[in-house]
Amino acid sequence: MRYKLEISYDGSNYYGFQIQKGVDTIQERLEHAVSIVLNKNIDIIASGRTDAGVSAIKQVCHFDYDGDINLNRLKGYANNLLPRDIRIISISSISSDFNARFSAKQKTYEYFFYVGEEIPVYERFATRLGCFLDIDKMREGCKYINGIHDFSCFCASNTNVIDKVREIKDIDIKVLDDNLYKLIITGNGFLYNMVRIIMGTLVSVGMGKIRPNQISDIIESKDRSNSGKTMPSKGLYLKNVKY
Amino acid sequence: MRYKLEISYDGSNYYGFQIQKGVDTIQERLEHAVSIVLNKNIDIIASGRTDAGVSAIKQVCHFDYDGDINLNRLKGYANNLLPRDIRIISISSISSDFNARFSAKQKTYEYFFYVGEEIPVYERFATRLGCFLDIDKMREGCKYINGIHDFSCFCASNTNVIDKVREIKDIDIKVLDDNLYKLIITGNGFLYNMVRIIMGTLVSVGMGKIRPNQISDIIESKDRSNSGKTMPSKGLYLKNVKY
Repeated sequence: MRYKLEISYDGSNYYGFQIQKGVDTIQERLEHAVSIVLNKNIDIIASGRTDAGVSAIKQVCHFDYDGDINLNRLKGYANNLLPRDIRIISISSISSDFNARFSAKQKTYEYFFYVGEEIPVYERFATRLGCFLDIDKMREGCKYINGIHDFSCFCASNTNVIDKVREIKDIDIKVLDDNLYKLIITGNGFLYNMVRIIMGTLVSVGMGKIRPNQISDIIESKDRSNSGKTMPSKGLYLKNVKY
Repeated sequence: MRYKLEISYDGSNYYGFQIQKGVDTIQERLEHAVSIVLNKNIDIIASGRTDAGVSAIKQVCHFDYDGDINLNRLKGYANNLLPRDIRIISISSISSDFNARFSAKQKTYEYFFYVGEEIPVYERFATRLGCFLDIDKMREGCKYINGIHDFSCFCASNTNVIDKVREIKDIDIKVLDDNLYKLIITGNGFLYNMVRIIMGTLVSVGMGKIRPNQISDIIESKDRSNSGKTMPSKGLYLKNVKY
């Protein structure tokens, strides 16, 4: 039987989702807790890895197990074994066709940022940009990112992925409060560091270093060195995964 | 000369604004830093105290000092001496008529809360309510709080304040995201624990324990025992003070 797992985590204290030797990861914590409750080694597959320091409001995973499961009991016991910054939201049985990674149709990420003097409360969840940003220009820049493109320019160079064509279905910046904003971006898939590099490129637009329509040229160049900085992981959240 | 100080702090690790013997407070940290830079004991008066665990996006203070001050230098040096969770946003000279506490015309507080399963990212800044809440009914309840009333029912019993008439100029609940909300409340002044008790009373409305219009009766009764629980300080933020 296959099971779908919805989880939520604060990634601040982890080296990302994926298991790596010698460091604390979300996957290892999760597999450890579920394996103890089911008394069997369980592999857990997520919709995708999140990088070190990146959090998820909602992440979706799956695992296989053939014995009987009391789902409420598994959820309760596993949550008791997990640290408070990783929570299982729901567990349900699902068709064996379902694959948390390959069945994912779209993902939404959010990037929180603020402008100006340091605000300790905002430091809990957002990245500070000390410079003035022209948010209208940044929103104009978003339009050039929307759609189906080869996004090589927004992909970190240390990747094995060959096909870098992805579809961005929705991208916008919302004003949350005075000087506090979030970028919301939905796509059918994301390359390594893609949201953080898009954010860095939009910051270049906001600072007036490049014009909004230059983003088209950057995308066409397929050259990572033409786009902006990789922004810190701190403001980045996986918001949702749709199947 | 009198100086106006705008500050911002994450109150999670402090026993409130006001100096108290033997515990770590924001006022003590602030006076300590400014006194070192000015080489003189400085008393700092805020618009009002915030309770233990309450944060401020913006708090306003004043202090008096008669020597020369390089304001940029004072701000920079004092911020270097302060812990990262307390920041001076600005310092400016101001008329001696100005009093951070008594000249305040209105204050705005925000209370962040969310409903449902535990979301670790939301735990950073909001209070979780595990029950279902009818937000529309809570918003209807807000209408009965608006206006000038004797708010004895929303004041913690351990207070010396005699006149409990205040004006609530604006009160509403905003939907921030799925299951994530904030109460925004603006008034000419607030009694001890007032926002947290109002929040607790609105939660009683949202849970269906009382009807929205019963809030009028509660206010008229002037009896603390008729209103709701004092909600945790965690979701509460002083947003702004106007003069």
